[in-house]
Amino acid sequence: MEGSSRFLKDRVIPIDVEKTGRVSDILMSFNDTSFQSRNLAKCVEIYLKMLEDPDDPTIFLGLAGAMVPAGMKKVISTMIKRRMVDVIVTTGANAYHDLAEAFGCYHYKGSPHVDDRELHRHGIDRIYDTFASEDGYRRVDERVARLADELIGKHPGLCRISSRRFTHELGRLIDREGLREEREGSFLWNAWRHNVPVFIPALCDSSIGLALTKHYIRSSKTGSTPIVIDQIMDNYEIYEIKRSSKKTGVIFIGGGVPKNYIQQVAYLEGLMDGSTRGHDYGFQITTDRPEWGGLSGCTFKEGVSWGKVKDDREFVTCYCDATIALPLIVRAVLERLNNQTKP
Amino acid sequence: MEGSSRFLKDRVIPIDVEKTGRVSDILMSFNDTSFQSRNLAKCVEIYLKMLEDPDDPTIFLGLAGAMVPAGMKKVISTMIKRRMVDVIVTTGANAYHDLAEAFGCYHYKGSPHVDDRELHRHGIDRIYDTFASEDGYRRVDERVARLADELIGKHPGLCRISSRRFTHELGRLIDREGLREEREGSFLWNAWRHNVPVFIPALCDSSIGLALTKHYIRSSKTGSTPIVIDQIMDNYEIYEIKRSSKKTGVIFIGGGVPKNYIQQVAYLEGLMDGSTRGHDYGFQITTDRPEWGGLSGCTFKEGVSWGKVKDDREFVTCYCDATIALPLIVRAVLERLNNQTKP
Amino acid sequence: MEGSSRFLKDRVIPIDVEKTGRVSDILMSFNDTSFQSRNLAKCVEIYLKMLEDPDDPTIFLGLAGAMVPAGMKKVISTMIKRRMVDVIVTTGANAYHDLAEAFGCYHYKGSPHVDDRELHRHGIDRIYDTFASEDGYRRVDERVARLADELIGKHPGLCRISSRRFTHELGRLIDREGLREEREGSFLWNAWRHNVPVFIPALCDSSIGLALTKHYIRSSKTGSTPIVIDQIMDNYEIYEIKRSSKKTGVIFIGGGVPKNYIQQVAYLEGLMDGSTRGHDYGFQITTDRPEWGGLSGCTFKEGVSWGKVKDDREFVTCYCDATIALPLIVRAVLERLNNQTKP
Amino acid sequence: MEGSSRFLKDRVIPIDVEKTGRVSDILMSFNDTSFQSRNLAKCVEIYLKMLEDPDDPTIFLGLAGAMVPAGMKKVISTMIKRRMVDVIVTTGANAYHDLAEAFGCYHYKGSPHVDDRELHRHGIDRIYDTFASEDGYRRVDERVARLADELIGKHPGLCRISSRRFTHELGRLIDREGLREEREGSFLWNAWRHNVPVFIPALCDSSIGLALTKHYIRSSKTGSTPIVIDQIMDNYEIYEIKRSSKKTGVIFIGGGVPKNYIQQVAYLEGLMDGSTRGHDYGFQITTDRPEWGGLSGCTFKEGVSWGKVKDDREFVTCYCDATIALPLIVRAVLERLNNQTKP
Repeated sequence: MEGSSRFLKDRVIPIDVEKTGRVSDILMSFNDTSFQSRNLAKCVEIYLKMLEDPDDPTIFLGLAGAMVPAGMKKVISTMIKRRMVDVIVTTGANAYHDLAEAFGCYHYKGSPHVDDRELHRHGIDRIYDTFASEDGYRRVDERVARLADELIGKHPGLCRISSRRFTHELGRLIDREGLREEREGSFLWNAWRHNVPVFIPALCDSSIGLALTKHYIRSSKTGSTPIVIDQIMDNYEIYEIKRSSKKTGVIFIGGGVPKNYIQQVAYLEGLMDGSTRGHDYGFQITTDRPEWGGLSGCTFKEGVSWGKVKDDREFVTCYCDATIALPLIVRAVLERLNNQTKP
Repeated sequence: MEGSSRFLKDRVIPIDVEKTGRVSDILMSFNDTSFQSRNLAKCVEIYLKMLEDPDDPTIFLGLAGAMVPAGMKKVISTMIKRRMVDVIVTTGANAYHDLAEAFGCYHYKGSPHVDDRELHRHGIDRIYDTFASEDGYRRVDERVARLADELIGKHPGLCRISSRRFTHELGRLIDREGLREEREGSFLWNAWRHNVPVFIPALCDSSIGLALTKHYIRSSKTGSTPIVIDQIMDNYEIYEIKRSSKKTGVIFIGGGVPKNYIQQVAYLEGLMDGSTRGHDYGFQITTDRPEWGGLSGCTFKEGVSWGKVKDDREFVTCYCDATIALPLIVRAVLERLNNQTKP
Repeated sequence: MEGSSRFLKDRVIPIDVEKTGRVSDILMSFNDTSFQSRNLAKCVEIYLKMLEDPDDPTIFLGLAGAMVPAGMKKVISTMIKRRMVDVIVTTGANAYHDLAEAFGCYHYKGSPHVDDRELHRHGIDRIYDTFASEDGYRRVDERVARLADELIGKHPGLCRISSRRFTHELGRLIDREGLREEREGSFLWNAWRHNVPVFIPALCDSSIGLALTKHYIRSSKTGSTPIVIDQIMDNYEIYEIKRSSKKTGVIFIGGGVPKNYIQQVAYLEGLMDGSTRGHDYGFQITTDRPEWGGLSGCTFKEGVSWGKVKDDREFVTCYCDATIALPLIVRAVLERLNNQTKP
Repeated sequence: MEGSSRFLKDRVIPIDVEKTGRVSDILMSFNDTSFQSRNLAKCVEIYLKMLEDPDDPTIFLGLAGAMVPAGMKKVISTMIKRRMVDVIVTTGANAYHDLAEAFGCYHYKGSPHVDDRELHRHGIDRIYDTFASEDGYRRVDERVARLADELIGKHPGLCRISSRRFTHELGRLIDREGLREEREGSFLWNAWRHNVPVFIPALCDSSIGLALTKHYIRSSKTGSTPIVIDQIMDNYEIYEIKRSSKKTGVIFIGGGVPKNYIQQVAYLEGLMDGSTRGHDYGFQITTDRPEWGGLSGCTFKEGVSWGKVKDDREFVTCYCDATIALPLIVRAVLERLNNQTKP
């Protein structure tokens, strides 16, 4: 049984919650536990590795789900402000909800155990256990439609832009017209301010897209040319970012388009120049699973076959709701980083 | 205890697998069981209701996941040919894989328990338990890029089109150049042939999008204007379909953009004209769940609050992998429809 | 790229639902698809292999969940009658619900979207989307308690028995006092009649256990000795079955105690005589997953390390609700077996 | 739209991870987020409510999964030592692994991506991503079998005992023979020392049960009477605890027998004396879901119909891996309690 010893080297160390400490202490002690708590700790570890790599990897954040109604926008803003993320790829919903709150259209704690017909009668939209005002949303929609009108009016050259450029304009809009006290929390505003590009590959598939449809219909009625969000221009722009990066790291919050889009950037690079430069680091927080064969639930290991992932040992998946895992990870990373910068 | 009788009316009838019969017989007997088998039976029931409604509802199919490598493309083709679906909204991956197979780039039975580095060295791309040839895919990518070149060349007026128009061209391409024996199975070809519009709201986020990026880069090098897929034009086109439909039914295979996109069409109609005309019927096959707050896992009941769903009693969710549920449902519906048309 | 060909041998064959056929035809065609439909087909394949192995493996069925309220009892009865299972290990709930129905205490189609306080006021117990009468259950409880009284009264030697022996007595009770028309469907009755042992390792954890607690309290009041269900005797009895079997196959419907118990029989055999005779074949239908580290979701591959599973290539997991997968599998197996016995 | 205001009262407050603080601070701020982070915060809230209720509710902890290999045993020990739990119901595995570690048979950090046949050859047992030595386990098994021999030898009156009594003896065994440095972490030892009863309703279904089977077979060979673990005596003992409690709270870590067993205690009380005294408070940490109809995934709301749960407003479910949620909850509760006892 001598050979068995190499499998029995690192003991699981029972976690001791009586020891005082900070969030990072408890997460670091998760490193010696098992199952998803160990994976959560590995996310922190890999995140720190990315941030401390002297090659300064470009960090892509893929953002699915409804992170703003979930109260997560400041976490993302912190990541931007603290230079913990370089490029964001998101669903339109996350950007839209962020914009809405910056214009005073807030989200409220509700419940899934309600009469949705009654909510509808009262103009309340439900997102699982969270409520919002339909009226408020419509106001925001109209402002976005008007933004498109204005962009066309003032800068006819803007008639064909990437989604990245449009979200940049949304960030500027928040700066100019958003509630002063809400700007600091807005990730669109922070991204605009810190020049972090925000891509929304499926922009049409969101309330921002609906607002642009209003603009489109209005334009066609008046005979003017509507703005065009050129999704292939997005591909080109993000490809250029990947190409000019020495290394890259990825963070996936949920799956969907944002995850696939960031994965495919590495693949596109291979298509264009024959090189295979998969991403170098990454972690994902997901509640999906690989057995259904969809991209949302796929493992980093699968990404290796495609060349999207360089070596899956520098990647980890934590199966957990992102509303729990993300703030803990970012908090723990901040504490570690702060420690190190102390004299 | 008198009042209790109203809760105890419909007995669960134990299913008898010794009775001979067809797929529809066993699915219909699921109607009297519980849990997800009952929900599977309800999908059949609601599908039949949609198809037999004299108001002839427009049926929208949302298609996420990797349905073609899963061997599901003929099921979708059957739905098209038999007029069981009127509009398709899909991920780019489903369209791309369908196209690839029509050009002889097949998918193969593999396993998730493999060395993905070895696969990568051999040019094999893995989709969970399915393999494909990277070489084959690259050939297809190039053909799509060339299609875009040609479209621009021949029809300069096509420089700005909806994704629906582009998938129509892909169907035509299969008709002209695809393998003869593969056409019948291709859902893009069948959609083209039967004039069923296929929308890909996040077209950029797929190998089709990557091919268009090659075209984009080539065009910019030669100074010509690349094709533009106008995603907001998509929104307008699908809105017009919804608007002109007396009633609508929805089928969601998985979540992601296709599900949200079809849901938001009903919402957009409300935004545009103040009316609230949520979808009338629907079923979804999903492995996601509502508790994470994302749109992919949300219930039809939640859709009622937004006005996207008229009355959730005509909707059902079956929690099951679509590769099991979808063929069974379509087979059972076909058997029932065939029976009725018999003299 | 020559080397790649060995990965690209078995093509995925798109399933054709327009071909007429039986349940087994569609399930067999799932063999050439991917994801969970392929795994469902493999369950049928492995089940047939077990049944056709000339070494006549002993087949253990582990039964968790609420299969009787789900309408699955006749499927299990068919498996018993057709000699498709040799030993059953179940939760107490499955046995109790089977007994209850044999005494006319049925289950009814309900809904999870109800006011449970109202149900409680009306004496209705809810099992997800299924209802039952609390009054009915109490009648059955009392009959079970009386059975224990009688057993002790008539056969003082029965004061210490295995759960297997007690479920045998329940089968006999159904034969004597159960509704005539319900006997054929009862799996307890069929097991009793066909001498298929039914083990309930956690008998105390069920309404049968509660009934025995009533008997226990009554006995202690009257000074008589209550019956003892000796759980370790169960272990010994099932160990003897394993030991005398040339080969063994396992079927797990859900996880919990039944799955672990059947797994550990193979492990126990190793403990007792040093041999390692893991199970030879198996399939499981589950909605759990391995990442939480619990036994319910563990893979057969993990079982190999313990010696509980001989070679995981003869095992398959299908991730699906058992109320869908189980009837389909048993139906398909029956069709195949019937075909073969035809002249 | 006035009526809508009542739905829009409690704003979601974006969580701010830049604010310094302790674990309890971040968890308390989860109270104003959504989805599972809000539910995690509610677990803390309800736990504090239980602990601060002047009626001093008896708190039952149901423990499924493999919590000890996961490094969670000290968390449970802390709960015992700090009087945060009064009764434990567990799978045999949790008790066995705790015992094993107390005898120096540790668990080690491993990986699911291994060759399990190789592990088997080296005598390594795998629990998802954790390894243990088969040799070590066998030593522990033998010690447990000998304990049963000794109990029978020294105390013939112990021939029929509850599982609770047997785990008490295991605690004493650890006190006498366990490694000194491991005792403090052992939850069995702490439970023994603080007189917290530990029930294992399915004791036979675990390595402890296997050890008792060795004892059983040895006894029968020597003609002596083996020890009997009387599971119905367990039911009686836990029923008496419930009956004598003014109020009760429940904590479910995972599902399985422990959850059902604690739920049914409340139901049994109703059966015995006609009263309905469902549990008063509770929270569960689970990765299962209600749609499969099993007890493991059922909601507290469903428990209301059975009378097992008094009012589901004092109960909450958090969908999360327990290895993440449990240490965070207990840590946060400790911090809050410590604060309050400060002068």
